[in-house]
Amino acid sequence: MASIVKGNAVIGQSGGPTAVINQSMVGVVETLREAPEIGKILGCVHGVRGILNDEFIELQDIPQDRLNRIANTPSAALGSSRDKPDEAYCRKLFTVLEKRDVRYFFYIGGNDSSDTCRIINELANEAGYELRCFHVPKTIDNDLVMNDHTPGYGSAAKFVAEAFMGDNLDNRALPGVKINIVMGRHAGFLTAASTLGRRHIEDAPHLVYVPEVAFDDEQFLHDVQRIYDASGRCVIAASEGIHDADGTPIITKLAQEVEQDQHGNVQLSGTGALGDFLADHIRKKLDIKRVRADTFGYLQRSFVGSTSGTDAEEARQVGREAAKAAMAGDVDGSIVIERVSNDPYRVRYRVGELSSIAGKTRHLDREFITDAGNDITPAFKQYASPLVGPLPEIELLRMSRA
Amino acid sequence: MASIVKGNAVIGQSGGPTAVINQSMVGVVETLREAPEIGKILGCVHGVRGILNDEFIELQDIPQDRLNRIANTPSAALGSSRDKPDEAYCRKLFTVLEKRDVRYFFYIGGNDSSDTCRIINELANEAGYELRCFHVPKTIDNDLVMNDHTPGYGSAAKFVAEAFMGDNLDNRALPGVKINIVMGRHAGFLTAASTLGRRHIEDAPHLVYVPEVAFDDEQFLHDVQRIYDASGRCVIAASEGIHDADGTPIITKLAQEVEQDQHGNVQLSGTGALGDFLADHIRKKLDIKRVRADTFGYLQRSFVGSTSGTDAEEARQVGREAAKAAMAGDVDGSIVIERVSNDPYRVRYRVGELSSIAGKTRHLDREFITDAGNDITPAFKQYASPLVGPLPEIELLRMSRA
Repeated sequence: MASIVKGNAVIGQSGGPTAVINQSMVGVVETLREAPEIGKILGCVHGVRGILNDEFIELQDIPQDRLNRIANTPSAALGSSRDKPDEAYCRKLFTVLEKRDVRYFFYIGGNDSSDTCRIINELANEAGYELRCFHVPKTIDNDLVMNDHTPGYGSAAKFVAEAFMGDNLDNRALPGVKINIVMGRHAGFLTAASTLGRRHIEDAPHLVYVPEVAFDDEQFLHDVQRIYDASGRCVIAASEGIHDADGTPIITKLAQEVEQDQHGNVQLSGTGALGDFLADHIRKKLDIKRVRADTFGYLQRSFVGSTSGTDAEEARQVGREAAKAAMAGDVDGSIVIERVSNDPYRVRYRVGELSSIAGKTRHLDREFITDAGNDITPAFKQYASPLVGPLPEIELLRMSRA
Repeated sequence: MASIVKGNAVIGQSGGPTAVINQSMVGVVETLREAPEIGKILGCVHGVRGILNDEFIELQDIPQDRLNRIANTPSAALGSSRDKPDEAYCRKLFTVLEKRDVRYFFYIGGNDSSDTCRIINELANEAGYELRCFHVPKTIDNDLVMNDHTPGYGSAAKFVAEAFMGDNLDNRALPGVKINIVMGRHAGFLTAASTLGRRHIEDAPHLVYVPEVAFDDEQFLHDVQRIYDASGRCVIAASEGIHDADGTPIITKLAQEVEQDQHGNVQLSGTGALGDFLADHIRKKLDIKRVRADTFGYLQRSFVGSTSGTDAEEARQVGREAAKAAMAGDVDGSIVIERVSNDPYRVRYRVGELSSIAGKTRHLDREFITDAGNDITPAFKQYASPLVGPLPEIELLRMSRA
């Protein structure tokens, strides 16, 4: 095992914020600062862009109680970045890290961030510059390979589950068709969480559409009509990234007729377009009067009142594990979460290869999707419930006549 | 004081559900069933429509612990209705109430519901049929006159405040312009709640637009550009019901160019149209790249994880007060909440005239809106904070360079 190199550390946060991304940052900081080899612990402001701009915040002297409060605050305290550094970009980053005598680099993010770590790690190796590079996993999409699940997912899933529990009650009180659009471009994990609060057979969502299954317009209309005819209502969960058999996103397909008005600015999040188009579509094609759509949007990843305790703990721990591994010798990698057992729920952490995570997308397991492709199986609830934690208790009146 | 008439009771829930509307129902039930004069306590399914259809659920024998769980469950457990009964409709209702030997009628809802109570009360008086009619206040819009505030508002306001706290952090991490559309057709109380989580001068929302102030498009664009130029970001709270000086809703104004595609189906809630149009408008007119819009939609009134404790207690109490007043003699009316003191926060309940609430809309007090008409004053926070209760603590990193 190599000796522990002395130097400074840099921590960055990348991509879409989560409710627990600061837990991971604090986990790294509180562990690193125990080590005498570590000088300054520098947070880079707005991810890799902060390194490029030589913009850092010193974190090593922040009192623990303040760190704890930061950890409990959603969204990236250091600021985040959507930059996807290529090799030339990484070369510039490496120059700054060298100049600042940085020997430990931690990047909290999704699979793009693990690729950034990988490239910087390679550049350091080439230069014979000793640099520990660690990717700390984070994404509400839950789409990192090798991981049982990723920090950030449990809290976003809790928000989605609670939102659907409430919307089920709302739709029960004032029936009609209701479409809720959930984040998820390629992976349906977050949309699947819409089913976690279901208790009774009549509970919403009644239909679930994820990017893993090609969206069949005719079948969709048929399903909606069938359920509406049977119960007088229908609540639908759909991922923002649903697409047809050719891979064309439904949002662009349905939006064609107004593309000129929209100036081709079709984006998936931060717009209600997909929900509105699906609602309009149902109104045009089916004989159903009350059709509404909500798009949950950024609330899913930033709402301050709906954090999963398990998610918060694990996010803290992946940060600590990254720092511990970095202090243990000549190792670089990505912290991976493995589930040891489901009952009682228990996980372990290990260091995975940076290259085995970068650029890959995990999809919703086939066993979590019903054969018809329009709902989620009970197996998913077994998988996801421990990540989300307890949901509020609700109690209904049975609508039997007096 | 008149003698207490023996007979059955009917309770109904009307209009948009709230997080605490079942508290009020349970408050009525648990108080009424103490009285020996009361026979059956019948919940009408889907409001007045349930009376019309003779569709009732017996509530008098539900065990208290189950009642408590129903009380803690958001959205109308009896089902709700959007019907606005005229005199002919009320005459039919009265016929059913008479037939069922109903002597106590409680309707939980907004000002339309108080008008329903008023008409039915008049019909009963004309017929010489003794019937106690009580309106129990409920609306997330907080727009009932005579009341300091209304049950349902505090919880919806808490959701909006928490959503903006999170979105402020999200926008701080990934800056740009963000528009959030909040419910409120005529009254800006709920949109004003977006400001309750602000702690620092730079906290969002940076601009707030309510229906009480005519929306000036040019001034809006000017304001957005000014704030974006100063801080690199701008979070906007806007009521769904904002309109121009002529009273034309902005959603219809901006939607004109795509009205054919939308089939004129312009509705305010359950669509992302207003947010999307405002975002598109900023993109077209200003040189700002990242512009996003979210529409909070039905989550504001039904989310299961964000109920205000004060709101829940008061919603329960207005139900109890209505039942107590009905049992006290020949009185009909609407339960009114008055604030006795702000520190400590304390309210009292009294019976108001049905006719003085019906058909009237309370608006956001002028002192709660800044002179420029694009923000909310600190006086509003004093007013609304006790209704919402404590908000999550957050802690930021100061973005000062290392």
